[in-house]
Amino acid sequence: MTRAFNFSAGPAALPAEVLQQAAEEMLDWHGAGMGVMEMSHRGREFMSILAQAQADLRELLAVPDNYRILFMQGGALAENAIIPMNLLGQRPDERRTADYVVTGAWSVKSQKEARRYCDVNIAASTEADKFTRLPAQAEWRLSKDPAYVHVCTNETIHGVEYFWTPDLAAAGLPDVPLVADVSSHILSRPLDVSRFGVIYGGAQKNIGPSGLTLVIVRDDLLDRSLPVCPTAFHWKTVAENDSMYNTPPTYAIYIAGLVFQWLKRRGGLAAMEAQNKAKAELLYGYLDNSGFYRTAVAKDCRSRMNVPFFLHDETLNDVFLAGARERGLLQLKGHKSVGGMRASIYNAMPLEGVTALVDYLREFERSHG
Amino acid sequence: MTRAFNFSAGPAALPAEVLQQAAEEMLDWHGAGMGVMEMSHRGREFMSILAQAQADLRELLAVPDNYRILFMQGGALAENAIIPMNLLGQRPDERRTADYVVTGAWSVKSQKEARRYCDVNIAASTEADKFTRLPAQAEWRLSKDPAYVHVCTNETIHGVEYFWTPDLAAAGLPDVPLVADVSSHILSRPLDVSRFGVIYGGAQKNIGPSGLTLVIVRDDLLDRSLPVCPTAFHWKTVAENDSMYNTPPTYAIYIAGLVFQWLKRRGGLAAMEAQNKAKAELLYGYLDNSGFYRTAVAKDCRSRMNVPFFLHDETLNDVFLAGARERGLLQLKGHKSVGGMRASIYNAMPLEGVTALVDYLREFERSHG
Repeated sequence: MTRAFNFSAGPAALPAEVLQQAAEEMLDWHGAGMGVMEMSHRGREFMSILAQAQADLRELLAVPDNYRILFMQGGALAENAIIPMNLLGQRPDERRTADYVVTGAWSVKSQKEARRYCDVNIAASTEADKFTRLPAQAEWRLSKDPAYVHVCTNETIHGVEYFWTPDLAAAGLPDVPLVADVSSHILSRPLDVSRFGVIYGGAQKNIGPSGLTLVIVRDDLLDRSLPVCPTAFHWKTVAENDSMYNTPPTYAIYIAGLVFQWLKRRGGLAAMEAQNKAKAELLYGYLDNSGFYRTAVAKDCRSRMNVPFFLHDETLNDVFLAGARERGLLQLKGHKSVGGMRASIYNAMPLEGVTALVDYLREFERSHG
Repeated sequence: MTRAFNFSAGPAALPAEVLQQAAEEMLDWHGAGMGVMEMSHRGREFMSILAQAQADLRELLAVPDNYRILFMQGGALAENAIIPMNLLGQRPDERRTADYVVTGAWSVKSQKEARRYCDVNIAASTEADKFTRLPAQAEWRLSKDPAYVHVCTNETIHGVEYFWTPDLAAAGLPDVPLVADVSSHILSRPLDVSRFGVIYGGAQKNIGPSGLTLVIVRDDLLDRSLPVCPTAFHWKTVAENDSMYNTPPTYAIYIAGLVFQWLKRRGGLAAMEAQNKAKAELLYGYLDNSGFYRTAVAKDCRSRMNVPFFLHDETLNDVFLAGARERGLLQLKGHKSVGGMRASIYNAMPLEGVTALVDYLREFERSHG
């Protein structure tokens, strides 16, 4: 089989150009006599790779100077613990409360993990609506003095995406940091980092390989940790050591750096947004006009990255997936908690991939409708 | 430059065969239409890679059935916190003591991190001897009721290695688990896992890329965690989810799996031990007979993996390193805390690499002695 169109939710498809370059450099990076995987993280070669990756990411996302870019490990699930461990240290026990807005499987997990370290106030939840919509900020019931407010701005499993940024100042909490899990849509479009205290995400959707966690933290939040926070996960320590307090996942950072360069060659995040919008419109447009398939998420918040959809006749699911596989359309099965299908169409998915999927949707509808 | 001999302490040289195979499979693994980095960790392709890696490692190390192999993240430095968080939960505050044997920079860090979670008793330390020897077990002053006893069986920075296994039963503590940081010599020779409660290590020396932590835990120790232990680092959760509670570092596991297969093709750990012994004897033999170089570690515990050495005339250090680099002998500079030089000669370093190093040592001695 040649390269297929891979709709995995993560780890996910990477640009072929990136993988090609990585393959070519595997045994000898730029004449160094060794591959990137074999380099001391403190040697000049890897230091240059790390510095370039940080600079490119800072440029792509227009990260303000008062924010630090941290490369960590453990994915968003580990960071769900690392966040409260880093943000609650300045508060006495009785003031350890954090607010969570629950909009899908990922924010459910985030708030659950935070309960190890603090009281959690669920400011809003759409669980009763099966996570098919976003609660407007007017619906939120924030607590009076939360240490932070947490949102997941794109729910990978439920396919719900924020196209607006919460405003805690408007809610009377101007000094409370907004913390966002951006794992599955970061770099898909421009983002105003200055609206957040912390953004974080696993790399394995839009950035690079799994095993790398990206955390971007505002300076004043670096050093509020609880004593139980492991040193390797203390943001200030990570920042002061330029993400090298412990040995970083060097190869994953290298691949992420190649992705950042690829994004720059493609015109940056505004260009990616245009392409991602076109891809999502093509796919949702077809699904909306079909009586054979259906989607569940409200139109104003359906994700451009993760598109869950269903066959009206679910007995055809296996036939659908087998046919997709035959046509080189891979990993379309929906998450077990939602069922049906899910097409994840991250940056690395070209328009042709979505076109091929829509062609198949049409063909399958014709032959089974 | 073609492939050099890379003496990095870690991330370290990998077998060229492994990198070659990884490069060939980068865009399309076994006809899957996608590379390993792009596979869902829950798909059949990656599941087979993971299962094979675990089975091969179990075979290589003869891991007993009552031990679980966990693939984690954060390296040994993170695990230094994860260990006490996992082993102290069954004890009330006043019984939270752990014993540490301090034999170099790594065990210094381990005991320091543990103090976040428990009282630490330093059972022995060779700091006064600048970590150039190992304290015999008869020198240890164990506490009466430690939750565990921690050793680092190969100190990467100081070049000190245990060639014996501590015996806690003989010390009157038959039920206390022995915990060992084996980062920098695991897989260099056979190891009797049954003598330990937990062994752990970062992969980036003898296993594969950085960003992967190997933890092997006896069943009865899986579920003793403190409430503050993040779920993603709770051994029982990791074990029950087959190292996939959070998205594992899939590509690092794949490379580790290729290394395990390479080790099996080479004859397993007994064969590696013979080769590693020959390499170490060649290098130490030359250094011992030279009046130009010196080593500092006692002969009965000098590491076969990490060989720190010094030029008597340290003003020649930079000239030495520049000449080495010209000859394709890379990353020989010693750790800043020890100074001088360090040759790390892990499994992937062939005998020819050590021969080339000794040839250079001789040549440099002749021209500068």
